[in-house]
Amino acid sequence: MLILGLDPSLSCTGWGVIRAEGSRISHIANGQVPTDAKAPMAQRLAALQAALAGVIADYRPDRAAAEEVFLNKNPQSTLKLAQARGCVLAACGAAGLAVNEHAARLVKKAVVGTGGAEKAQVQAMLKVLLPGAQITGADAADALAVAIADAHLSYTPTSR
Amino acid sequence: MLILGLDPSLSCTGWGVIRAEGSRISHIANGQVPTDAKAPMAQRLAALQAALAGVIADYRPDRAAAEEVFLNKNPQSTLKLAQARGCVLAACGAAGLAVNEHAARLVKKAVVGTGGAEKAQVQAMLKVLLPGAQITGADAADALAVAIADAHLSYTPTSR
Repeated sequence: MLILGLDPSLSCTGWGVIRAEGSRISHIANGQVPTDAKAPMAQRLAALQAALAGVIADYRPDRAAAEEVFLNKNPQSTLKLAQARGCVLAACGAAGLAVNEHAARLVKKAVVGTGGAEKAQVQAMLKVLLPGAQITGADAADALAVAIADAHLSYTPTSR
Repeated sequence: MLILGLDPSLSCTGWGVIRAEGSRISHIANGQVPTDAKAPMAQRLAALQAALAGVIADYRPDRAAAEEVFLNKNPQSTLKLAQARGCVLAACGAAGLAVNEHAARLVKKAVVGTGGAEKAQVQAMLKVLLPGAQITGADAADALAVAIADAHLSYTPTSR
């Protein structure tokens, strides 16, 4: 089972693919898609979406996961984020992928064990959980974290 | 010059294509793209985007136009609208179309002559400006209005 974690944003979307077998997880790939801040919005969004469609075509994940959106108090920020997020979700939808959404607290809890974990704690745990993974940056790290959370939240141990 | 007007929303996106030759405009086509409220978000967005890509492929407009987004006080509404809008903009961007954005007041002023016009006044003027056009519904009417505004706002008469 390959899970694609996503951290959508207009300026730089993070993505990460992990393999989940029962309770075991391993790293497959991760990356970030920056967009050209000087390009018109329609072209930035199209470029972001094309890059994500390429990732999906390359790794053929079985499902995707993203954090529930953080509704910024600044409506303009919410607008930019949500326009980018819509393109990322549509790229998944066009490829037939379901996208599970998880609250940020649940992602931290699944990765670190506490919903109030700091970013640095999450990133330190990623090194433990995905040994040897070269993580592209903070956005890719967030994407891997949501993929791990999705694997954990979907894994129910078989009783014996 | 063919102009594609757009009124993006998650539940039902309106579109309208007009031909603009100098100050003359004529109706080419219009329609609405409803999405299935029971489908997952990623699939709704992908379906909306595929439908818009089909409209662009069918009519090959030279440019597109949309109203500047109305930032709803309800952040959840803004999120839904903006996710759909991002997909609509990306469909234009992927086809190489520029998307002009116009304030709602300017659209009304361009169509009716006053920025404070009611929806009914806009729709009545559409019948005058685009005689014979069968308008699919209120969302398609809004899309045609923004296309007309884009034609007017971009038209500078040649001095003699």
